[in-house]
Amino acid sequence: MSVTAARSFVASGVHCGIRRNRPDLAVIRSLARATGAAMFTTNRARAAPVKISVEHLELAQPQAVVVNSGVANAATGARGELDARATAAEAARLLDLHAEEVLVLSTGVIGRRLPLDRVLAGLPDAVRALSPQGGEAAAEAILTTDTGVKLARAGGPGFTVGGVAKGSGMIHPNLATMLAVVTTDYPLEPGEASELLRPAVEESFNSISVDGECSTNDTVVLLANGAGDVRRGADPDTAFTAALRAVCADLAAQIVADGEGATVLAEIEVGGAASDNEAKAIARRIATSPLVKTALFGRDANWGRILAAAGSAPYNGGFANLDPERVTLDFNGVRVLAAGAPQQAEPKLDGGTCRIGLELGLGTGRASYLTSDLSYDYIRINADYRT
Amino acid sequence: MSVTAARSFVASGVHCGIRRNRPDLAVIRSLARATGAAMFTTNRARAAPVKISVEHLELAQPQAVVVNSGVANAATGARGELDARATAAEAARLLDLHAEEVLVLSTGVIGRRLPLDRVLAGLPDAVRALSPQGGEAAAEAILTTDTGVKLARAGGPGFTVGGVAKGSGMIHPNLATMLAVVTTDYPLEPGEASELLRPAVEESFNSISVDGECSTNDTVVLLANGAGDVRRGADPDTAFTAALRAVCADLAAQIVADGEGATVLAEIEVGGAASDNEAKAIARRIATSPLVKTALFGRDANWGRILAAAGSAPYNGGFANLDPERVTLDFNGVRVLAAGAPQQAEPKLDGGTCRIGLELGLGTGRASYLTSDLSYDYIRINADYRT
Repeated sequence: MSVTAARSFVASGVHCGIRRNRPDLAVIRSLARATGAAMFTTNRARAAPVKISVEHLELAQPQAVVVNSGVANAATGARGELDARATAAEAARLLDLHAEEVLVLSTGVIGRRLPLDRVLAGLPDAVRALSPQGGEAAAEAILTTDTGVKLARAGGPGFTVGGVAKGSGMIHPNLATMLAVVTTDYPLEPGEASELLRPAVEESFNSISVDGECSTNDTVVLLANGAGDVRRGADPDTAFTAALRAVCADLAAQIVADGEGATVLAEIEVGGAASDNEAKAIARRIATSPLVKTALFGRDANWGRILAAAGSAPYNGGFANLDPERVTLDFNGVRVLAAGAPQQAEPKLDGGTCRIGLELGLGTGRASYLTSDLSYDYIRINADYRT
Repeated sequence: MSVTAARSFVASGVHCGIRRNRPDLAVIRSLARATGAAMFTTNRARAAPVKISVEHLELAQPQAVVVNSGVANAATGARGELDARATAAEAARLLDLHAEEVLVLSTGVIGRRLPLDRVLAGLPDAVRALSPQGGEAAAEAILTTDTGVKLARAGGPGFTVGGVAKGSGMIHPNLATMLAVVTTDYPLEPGEASELLRPAVEESFNSISVDGECSTNDTVVLLANGAGDVRRGADPDTAFTAALRAVCADLAAQIVADGEGATVLAEIEVGGAASDNEAKAIARRIATSPLVKTALFGRDANWGRILAAAGSAPYNGGFANLDPERVTLDFNGVRVLAAGAPQQAEPKLDGGTCRIGLELGLGTGRASYLTSDLSYDYIRINADYRT
């Protein structure tokens, strides 16, 4: 049930002193030769570790991942890149790998330099602590404002997929301040990892939102070492694809449920759009609307705000297609609009999960999105985070 | 200092019973023959009064405006359009105008039918109460969660421009739940009003944000009746253009300052962008970022979040151009980033107005934006608004 669930993966989490009293440095490593892939934030202000990891992925198959929390090493200029590079180099030396085989991930405050001396001093401890039981410690060390660890596992005949993630604030498509490492003992060829990771991320981590932010550091890594008992054919088994998607979806749902200050989850389903992309644009707009999210927090079944958000979904320099006279809207199983006509219905919103179904009547485009409400605690957490 | 500041405009505000104990119906009228223009929300789910007003504007020059608060008459289907049409027709009858010469504006809860009987019963009172001193009563009657009236005035040789607005929640570009009526006794030809209104709105009402929302009802109206002492040439005087812009800018600033729960104002200046449009996309993204806005509320000079927001500004299906290595960022007069290199500087954020200056070093594109912080009160107001 963690990033070490699959065979021949070890992990650790230690305290190196970036943060005061919490573990802040994790290492995850494959003991068997792995292939791998990663997806990164699309934010133009990419953090130093993202740049370095992108560079390393182009040069080699990743074998290990170093993650620190507390400092994002973003907006740190050329110095920040040297710090990220030095971290990877020292981890590689200790793990007997090439520097390019190590990916570096950071999460925390932007604009502050990574305390490199502490990271370098902590790395030997982290490497010594590596073990097949270290998944939970690693999960603990990568958290920021999360209230708990995020672990997932799925498997099939002869293989296991395990994963770990951190989320909380800034969660949004394009992998916003979200880190995830997924490992498997299923065998993958170089190239396949990337091909399989992309759709799995699109429908999981890229379909959730806590506050609409897209961070400088977000990264999802997949390592596959083939240490299981699978003898595969030319194409990856559908059982593996399904397990990979399940682990990503599970971690994504945990991230939303633990969104900063979240008290309600909302599942948004948009159908009948002109295209899948427009459906996604509309679902995302609803999922990130402060008015929708505060209504959710207030347990107000305010479906009018959902319609207003849907009508202003940025798409291709304008708004996504929506004809109010064709819209059908279900709120928690109650139909409130039918082909544009308001129904005399009073939906309820208690707690738990809220289901929002929007049918546009324009085409066959579909998308779904998971979001949380916007609460006092979101503001408390983010107004106080640095101080 | 209101919508009746210019000559030959009368206004009123009365209670017709849409809301429990507050004035909820306003009429604004030009006594001299006016030309006019209006700009409307770009939300695809336009409210019924917006549709009807658009239709009326195509048929005639507007002479009067009827505004109700409490119910937005949005998402009300065909019935809502009949209600908006009936409101304009009855006002026209009482004012001895054609129905097409009356514009109707609504603001309030979405998805609830306009109580037409109350509006029709209230209109005779509102028309009887019309007076050159009625600007403040009209300003009062159009408010929703606003904490005070919003009035502005500017003038020049022989003419006056006056205005009234309501804002508060949902404020965002594309005129989100924001209503404004600007009147002038300067003479304008049909067509000129529209030509002059557009840029004035773009740099004022379309350059502010409270919560990133774009509503179903937003409208800005300009009426010009030529009742002043101006004898103009072929082109409108620059003094008039300046006064019109000043009134729009003044009203827009009042709207942001009264943003739901606002405790701090922030002025965002983006320069050196690849284009003006990209500068605006980046300024808007900063202005609507929950993480930036909660940091402002927490008086945390957290400039890293500004950079993260700037790096993820939606533009043309991707993000606006930004090269982190060229970015220079000033926070409240303190340089924190110089061409991508972090400076050893600790900016301060006390209260009042916060100035954010971002130079991208890519071109000559410029834009500015006004925003407010995101506070506990925003959530209180919006979680409780309907209940």
